[in-house]
Amino acid sequence: MNRDKIKRVKLIIEYDGRNYHGFQIQNNARTIQAEIENAIFKLTGEKVSIAAAGRTDAKVHALGQVISFDTSSTIPAERWKYALNSVLPGDIRVRESSYVAKDFHPRFNAISKVYHYLIYRQEKGAVFYRHYAWINSDYLNIDEMKRASNFIIGTYDFRSFCSSGSSVKNFTRTVKKLEIIDEFPFLWFKIEADGFLYNMVRIITGTLVEIGQGKYPAGEMKNIIEARDRNRAGITAPPQGLYLIEVKY
Amino acid sequence: MNRDKIKRVKLIIEYDGRNYHGFQIQNNARTIQAEIENAIFKLTGEKVSIAAAGRTDAKVHALGQVISFDTSSTIPAERWKYALNSVLPGDIRVRESSYVAKDFHPRFNAISKVYHYLIYRQEKGAVFYRHYAWINSDYLNIDEMKRASNFIIGTYDFRSFCSSGSSVKNFTRTVKKLEIIDEFPFLWFKIEADGFLYNMVRIITGTLVEIGQGKYPAGEMKNIIEARDRNRAGITAPPQGLYLIEVKY
Repeated sequence: MNRDKIKRVKLIIEYDGRNYHGFQIQNNARTIQAEIENAIFKLTGEKVSIAAAGRTDAKVHALGQVISFDTSSTIPAERWKYALNSVLPGDIRVRESSYVAKDFHPRFNAISKVYHYLIYRQEKGAVFYRHYAWINSDYLNIDEMKRASNFIIGTYDFRSFCSSGSSVKNFTRTVKKLEIIDEFPFLWFKIEADGFLYNMVRIITGTLVEIGQGKYPAGEMKNIIEARDRNRAGITAPPQGLYLIEVKY
Repeated sequence: MNRDKIKRVKLIIEYDGRNYHGFQIQNNARTIQAEIENAIFKLTGEKVSIAAAGRTDAKVHALGQVISFDTSSTIPAERWKYALNSVLPGDIRVRESSYVAKDFHPRFNAISKVYHYLIYRQEKGAVFYRHYAWINSDYLNIDEMKRASNFIIGTYDFRSFCSSGSSVKNFTRTVKKLEIIDEFPFLWFKIEADGFLYNMVRIITGTLVEIGQGKYPAGEMKNIIEARDRNRAGITAPPQGLYLIEVKY
């Protein structure tokens, strides 16, 4: 790369995660990162390393993932979208492309991220949602779940909602919004925070579902947060219901 | 099979057709029929040949396909559903199982069938619909399409909407209902008829879309029907937007 001509490209992308082992590159597995880096190589001959706003897990989807990389190519900003889409597989699409300041970082510069989680609540038609939602037709007390969700909104140490294996030291995050939208057979969880711990959305969802099932009352959510103990929270909801919707800067 | 004990089973099934070469069994290709016949063989040891209400094409989906087969197995009616679902792949599900009269035939006894066709009309999110809808973000004049759709309702010789390769002699069918439902970004075509010619729903949809694009006026639909000539109608809409919804008896 010609260092004088290096520019940073920002892309907003969407992908269907069903056939991927997550965003982050790994050996012998199909990943979003590898597909995009290969596509950039095909276009420019440059071996780049892309940065992402959220390193989504295997089977997790995105509608508004943000990534960036450096290039010395002279492709005009808006052409990156069409050029990359011509070489990317059909289940990864670039929606917007632009040049940004050289110090832009999709994760560190993010003010907040929005994730949605989808539960599909009936047997009929489930065949079309098994890779795109958590198929769960248990009776759920939605009012109780909504009451419990209010405890989540605010600034807390969310250690109880962080899977082990995470290397973070600071577990404090601010959840700005958590909405539960019941449009049968769909049940949507829409959550916005300044950042998320590992599996945080999925563990919050799993805990809210256990409250909806009546395993413990809504007020227990407060105790679970205060316990700062992963074992106190509910199950980790399965990955295929999770969507990275938007990253705000 | 013990002929004295033969009973006829009727199943209502749904399937995601994206990974199948259609309903009807064929060599060296994955088909819905083969998967179901294999599942029945695993359960009963019987090699059966199933009959279906509609032999859907490659990539076409079903929410309410009806099939039947004969068995001398003693599995109770409602257990067939659970037993078959335990051995079928996840993209084919039995929704209802029952025993029916020995002369029941899922196609010949049908009074009418309902198909839906889905167009997804925007770029955003299209990654999730490319196997489940026709992705088409052209401007469409929906009012003009609705006007044209009225010419389709009724009893006509629908030869103009039948792909070649069909062996039928009688092209007369009665379309009982044709609704166009515009819920952006979705555009649904809901059609009910006493029977359908080969590719009839997809050619009607393709013709209506060409009218929506302004290629010819709504009134031309009447001329196309009267021409009894496949070349006069529009394109065949792609298979992945088509769903067999219900079979009425």
